[in-house]
Amino acid sequence: MTAAESADWWATSIVRMAPGEVELRGIPVQELIGSVDFVSAVWLMVRGELPDARRAALLEAALVASVDHGPQAPSIAIARMTATCGVGLNNAMASGVNALGDSHGGAGQQCVEMLTEIVAADGDLAAAVERVVARHRYVPGFGHRFHPVDPRRGPLLALVDRAVADGVVDGRHLRAARAVEAHLDANRRRPVPMNIDGATAVIYAELGFAPELARGLFVLGRSVGILAHAWEEMSQGLRNKGPIPRSILPTYRGKPEATSDQ
Amino acid sequence: MTAAESADWWATSIVRMAPGEVELRGIPVQELIGSVDFVSAVWLMVRGELPDARRAALLEAALVASVDHGPQAPSIAIARMTATCGVGLNNAMASGVNALGDSHGGAGQQCVEMLTEIVAADGDLAAAVERVVARHRYVPGFGHRFHPVDPRRGPLLALVDRAVADGVVDGRHLRAARAVEAHLDANRRRPVPMNIDGATAVIYAELGFAPELARGLFVLGRSVGILAHAWEEMSQGLRNKGPIPRSILPTYRGKPEATSDQ
Amino acid sequence: MTAAESADWWATSIVRMAPGEVELRGIPVQELIGSVDFVSAVWLMVRGELPDARRAALLEAALVASVDHGPQAPSIAIARMTATCGVGLNNAMASGVNALGDSHGGAGQQCVEMLTEIVAADGDLAAAVERVVARHRYVPGFGHRFHPVDPRRGPLLALVDRAVADGVVDGRHLRAARAVEAHLDANRRRPVPMNIDGATAVIYAELGFAPELARGLFVLGRSVGILAHAWEEMSQGLRNKGPIPRSILPTYRGKPEATSDQ
Amino acid sequence: MTAAESADWWATSIVRMAPGEVELRGIPVQELIGSVDFVSAVWLMVRGELPDARRAALLEAALVASVDHGPQAPSIAIARMTATCGVGLNNAMASGVNALGDSHGGAGQQCVEMLTEIVAADGDLAAAVERVVARHRYVPGFGHRFHPVDPRRGPLLALVDRAVADGVVDGRHLRAARAVEAHLDANRRRPVPMNIDGATAVIYAELGFAPELARGLFVLGRSVGILAHAWEEMSQGLRNKGPIPRSILPTYRGKPEATSDQ
Repeated sequence: MTAAESADWWATSIVRMAPGEVELRGIPVQELIGSVDFVSAVWLMVRGELPDARRAALLEAALVASVDHGPQAPSIAIARMTATCGVGLNNAMASGVNALGDSHGGAGQQCVEMLTEIVAADGDLAAAVERVVARHRYVPGFGHRFHPVDPRRGPLLALVDRAVADGVVDGRHLRAARAVEAHLDANRRRPVPMNIDGATAVIYAELGFAPELARGLFVLGRSVGILAHAWEEMSQGLRNKGPIPRSILPTYRGKPEATSDQ
Repeated sequence: MTAAESADWWATSIVRMAPGEVELRGIPVQELIGSVDFVSAVWLMVRGELPDARRAALLEAALVASVDHGPQAPSIAIARMTATCGVGLNNAMASGVNALGDSHGGAGQQCVEMLTEIVAADGDLAAAVERVVARHRYVPGFGHRFHPVDPRRGPLLALVDRAVADGVVDGRHLRAARAVEAHLDANRRRPVPMNIDGATAVIYAELGFAPELARGLFVLGRSVGILAHAWEEMSQGLRNKGPIPRSILPTYRGKPEATSDQ
Repeated sequence: MTAAESADWWATSIVRMAPGEVELRGIPVQELIGSVDFVSAVWLMVRGELPDARRAALLEAALVASVDHGPQAPSIAIARMTATCGVGLNNAMASGVNALGDSHGGAGQQCVEMLTEIVAADGDLAAAVERVVARHRYVPGFGHRFHPVDPRRGPLLALVDRAVADGVVDGRHLRAARAVEAHLDANRRRPVPMNIDGATAVIYAELGFAPELARGLFVLGRSVGILAHAWEEMSQGLRNKGPIPRSILPTYRGKPEATSDQ
Repeated sequence: MTAAESADWWATSIVRMAPGEVELRGIPVQELIGSVDFVSAVWLMVRGELPDARRAALLEAALVASVDHGPQAPSIAIARMTATCGVGLNNAMASGVNALGDSHGGAGQQCVEMLTEIVAADGDLAAAVERVVARHRYVPGFGHRFHPVDPRRGPLLALVDRAVADGVVDGRHLRAARAVEAHLDANRRRPVPMNIDGATAVIYAELGFAPELARGLFVLGRSVGILAHAWEEMSQGLRNKGPIPRSILPTYRGKPEATSDQ
C-alpha cells in the first residue's frame, strides 16, 4: 500500500498540475488566458476539447438566456435572504444553487432526455411524441405558469434554425421539440409552447451535451442572476431578511384535524 | 397594510417582469440573446450596464484564468465527493461553491481592498505599501504554496499592461500591486510573486468592481471547474466517495492529554 | 388582494407567534423548557404531539447510534474540509448535511419504504420478502462494506425486541426486517446482516414515522458528528485542507481514448 | 512517502474504527446505545467526555429552547422553499443551516465571547460591562425586534439560577449577563432584555463551551425546526415555492439614479 493509491483515488482527465504548471484538458492555462473566450473554456472543461465558433455561439445564447427570472424564483429569493444573514457572498450563492433541483433547475435535463428518446425512436415521429408525452403530466420544457409565451423561446429557436440551415447542427432534436409543441397544441385545451428549459434543451441536445449537463449548464447561467441579486441585497444592508415584511405574521393553521400515524 | 408591502419587500433594480416580458437591467431579454456575449451579460447583471469590448475582454481573461486548480483544492474535492452521494449535480456544485470562503475564495476580495487602500493613500507609494503589507502575515494575492511562480500571473498582467497602454484602464491598481511585489521581493527570504488571486484582483480593481464582487466573480469562474469535476466524478459511478481510498483507515489519535475546559 | 395572502402563503401548523408568545404545536415554549427532553421535542415538532417515554427512548437510541462513522464518510470529510476554508461553523455543517443524499443518508428511508411494503403485503411473509428483495441489487439497510457485522445492529434490535415484548410497538416491521435478513443469509454467498440504516429503519417504521423522516432524523443524528468533526478540524487551524496531503499530487489520467459525443 | 501520510492527514480524536468496531471518544458505540441520552451523546462528541446529569440538563434546556422561531426566520423559510424544488430533505435542511451565519445564528457565539471578556476582567463588574457594551451598536444576546420580552428568557434563567444555587455551575457568566441587562435598562430609552441567544449563551458559557460551539449547538437545536418545517412544506406538494404568492409581483425599482463606478 503506497501513496500512489491516494494519488489514483483523485485521478482526473481534466487537469494536470506540476509546480509552475497547470494544464486544462491538455492545454497549458497560459495559452487559454486572453485567447479563448469564457464560453469556449466552459465547453473545453466539460467536454474535453475546444468547440468551433458557431457551436460555442449556440451555447453562449443558451447561457445568456438563463441568467435570471427574478426574485420570485426560490433560488433567487434564497440567495437574497441568505446574503442578509452574515455569511459570505459565496455561501449565499451556494444556497441559491442548491435549490436548482429536479423541479426548479431540472426541466432542461428531463427535456433533453425526452428529446433524445424521441429522436432515438427513429421512425414515426408523431407516434414517438404521442407515446412519450403521454407519460408526463407536466411535459418538461413546455408551458409556463407566468408567461403565455416565454419571451426567450423565439430568439433561441431562431438561432437554432439558422444553425441548422448552415449545417452547424443537424436539427433532429429541434424537429422533435417542434413536434411535441404541435402535439400539445392539438391535444390540450390551451397552447403550452416551449419555454426557456425546452428551448435551451434543444440547444444542449443539438450540441451533444449529456442530459445531466443541461442542468449543470443552467446552474452556471443562473449563477449570474444569483450573484447579482445576492449582491444587490447585501449592498442594502438589511439583516436577517425573512420572506415577507415583518408586519405580516404567518397564519397559524392550528392542529391538523386528526394527527395521523403518518 | 396591503399586498404592495410584499411587492416592495422584494423590489429590485435588476429585473422587470410582466406576462410575456422579461427585462434585465432595462433591456428586453430577447435583445440580449444572440447579441450579447456571456461575459458582457455578467457585467450587465452585476453592474447595471453593458461594458465596452476591451473592458469585457479583461473580465473574460480573469474568469478563464479562474476555472480550475485541480482536485486538491477543497472546493473541487468536495464537489466530487458530494456528486457520489445520490444528490443532484446542482447540489454537488453548491457544496463546492460553499467552500469558497475567506481563505479559499476570498483572497481576491482582500487583495482588491488592499490595492484600493494603497491607491487611495495617493502619496508616497512605497510608504503606503510598507504600511499595508506590515498588517498581513499572508499578503492576500501574493505567493503560492504550490507554484514558485503562478503560471497565470504572466499572461494576466500582460493583458493589463496592454490595456493600460491603450488607455482602457488607468493602471493605478496595477502599479500598486507591482509595488507590493517589489516590496516583498526586497524584504522576504524568498520571492512571493503575485498569484491568480492577485492578478485577477488587479483586473477587478482596474475595472471598478467592488471588492466583494472579486469573490463573486471568482465563484462564477471556479464554478466551471466545479461542474466539470463533479460531472467527471458522477460519470464514473462510484458511491459515497470518501477522501482517501477505503484501504487507508484514518489514524486514531487517542484522547487529548488533558481535556481542557475548552 | 390583501396582505392576508402573504400571511397564508406562509401558514403553518407548527408554530404560533405573537409578541411575547411562542407556541410550538400548541404548547407555549416556556412549558417545554426544562420539562421536556430534547428527543421528545424532536418528536413533538415533526409529529405534532409529545410521545410517551418508551417510544421516545427508541427514537433516542436510533439518534445516538447515528452520530458518527468517522472521517472516511464523505459528509464528515466535507464538513472538515469546509471548516478550513474561512467560513462559519454553520456553513461547514451545511455542506456535510448536503451530502447525506440518496446513497449516503437515504438508505434508512428506502428501508422504511421496503419494510412498509412487506408489512402491507399482509399475507405470505416469505413471498413478499422474495418479491421485494428481487428488485434491489443493494438491499437498503443490509450489508456493510466495512463491518462484517455492524456493531450498532445488536443493541438496537435488542431494544426493539424488548419494546415488542412490552407492547410498546407491535413488531411487524421488525419481523419483516428479520425475514429479509434470513432470506439474504439463505440466498447470498455471504451474510449481509442488517446495518445501522436497517436497524434504525426498523425503529422509525415501528414508531410510525414517514419514510422521508427516516432520512431527516438520520440527518439530525449525524449532525452531531458533523459538528464535532468540523469543530475539531477548525480548532487545529489548518487552512484550505484538501482531501490528501499536499505532497501527494493527484494522478493525471490523460485524455480519454475517444471523446464521445458528450 | 507512504500511505501513513494519508492516514495521518485524516487523524482524529473523535472516533476509532476497525472492522466490527466503532468507538466514540474511547467508548464502544454499543455501550452508548440505549444507555446514554442524546444530549449526553452530543456533549461526549464535542467535549470528549460524558457530562453529569445536572450539566446535561442545562444543555438540554438550551437545545429545546432553540428548536424554532417560525417561518419568518430566513433559515426556516429557505428550508421550506428549497423543499419544494425537487431535492432531498437533507438538501433543504442544509440550505436552512447555511443561513445561520453571523447575523442569524451567531449572536450566541458573540454573546459567549462578550460574557467571557467581562468575567475575565475580574475586577469592577460595572466598569467591564460599560467598556464592553460601548463597543456594540447591537449588544449580542439582548433585545428582540419582535418580542418585548422573549418568552424563553425567564425559564432558561430560572434553570441557571437553580444550578448556581446547587453548585452545578458557578454563576459568573450569569452575573455578567444580568449586569449587562441592568446597564442597558439604565442607559437605553427602553429595556432590551436578554433574548434566546443571550440566555442560552449564559448556559453555554457556564458549562464551559467554546464560543464557536454556541453557534454549533444552536445549529443542532434549530435543525429540529428546520426539519419539521421542510417536512411540513414537502408534504403539501407545492412546486417551486417562491417567497410571496404568485399573484404578487416584485416591484421594479428602475435604474439607480447614478450608476456609480462602485
